[in-house]
Amino acid sequence: MPPIVACAKTTPPRDRVRDVAAGLFADRGLDGFKMRDLAARLGVSVMTPYRYFENKEAILACVRAHGFACLADTLDGVAGEGALEQRVAALAAAYGAFALAEPARYGLMFGPAPAQSPGAVEVRRQEARVEAAFTVHAHGLSEAGLRCAEPATLGRLLWSTLHGVAVLHLGGQLPQVDLGGALRHAARALTIACAGVAA
Amino acid sequence: MPPIVACAKTTPPRDRVRDVAAGLFADRGLDGFKMRDLAARLGVSVMTPYRYFENKEAILACVRAHGFACLADTLDGVAGEGALEQRVAALAAAYGAFALAEPARYGLMFGPAPAQSPGAVEVRRQEARVEAAFTVHAHGLSEAGLRCAEPATLGRLLWSTLHGVAVLHLGGQLPQVDLGGALRHAARALTIACAGVAA
Repeated sequence: MPPIVACAKTTPPRDRVRDVAAGLFADRGLDGFKMRDLAARLGVSVMTPYRYFENKEAILACVRAHGFACLADTLDGVAGEGALEQRVAALAAAYGAFALAEPARYGLMFGPAPAQSPGAVEVRRQEARVEAAFTVHAHGLSEAGLRCAEPATLGRLLWSTLHGVAVLHLGGQLPQVDLGGALRHAARALTIACAGVAA
Repeated sequence: MPPIVACAKTTPPRDRVRDVAAGLFADRGLDGFKMRDLAARLGVSVMTPYRYFENKEAILACVRAHGFACLADTLDGVAGEGALEQRVAALAAAYGAFALAEPARYGLMFGPAPAQSPGAVEVRRQEARVEAAFTVHAHGLSEAGLRCAEPATLGRLLWSTLHGVAVLHLGGQLPQVDLGGALRHAARALTIACAGVAA
């Protein structure tokens, strides 16, 4: 399994704990994750990670929040130009590339997590950024003169469809389909739906 | 948390091990699952579960395969009659109801699992049944005179979209939206996409 996030030596210590922990979560799961194993991977004393995080639940929340923040940044970076079909296809391709680049992190982001952990508020904040990014794209599609649904609704539909394609692919439920092809098809269907959903 | 599957006293022993194990997996995760805890919940000796399953991975595979089999049965039972929008809405409602009825089991079905475990072949077989059920529904939509994509492709799109809506809802990523409303909207978009996707 490739490392979840490459860590430069100049990475701030808290971020380094987060990134190394992400790999350990991916390998062992939430229950198999031990703070002493994390310290060993970091090459530090057992107590050092506690300088930065209250407990392992707080670390997982930080991993998830960072993942959603990166996803929001990715979506914000997709150009909102060109014809409708091109815009939706660009959004779909960027989403798929994000999921495929680090499937273990993607699984952690959407996987089970304690709702009340320290850091859960930040997770929600970053999740809302992703939703907002989709809404912005939906606004752009609406401004292109399409008979769109309300942008927030359409944004959620975009996210749901692309996420569904990605997780069925990553979960092995659609072994005969490549992700790129499935996303292109979804983008095409979404384009048509965007044009007519409020008709 | 409600029990994953209610077990009648007449349930065959292997099925009872599977169903009680499903609850334990939901509570503890794959790594936290201990065969001795399973035996305790069943009220049997530590070795008894091994009469029916090689190991915990084999049990998880059985839980997952059974879940996909139930999902396939659910989808097969959706009536393929009425107007296009009604058919798609019925499919969406049935899918959402399945996911909401037992979210813990739904999470196990699509969650991480060892690919090489005993029983993985049966999981794949039942997953393929779900995919086939969607394809059958897509055939039905096609026969309604719509300019549909190839039914297998359209079936996968149906599944992906509904699954994406369900898992974002269950994961808490869309806290301000009720699942029924999101599914109705997705069904509407899919109806439009079905009508035009091959245009």
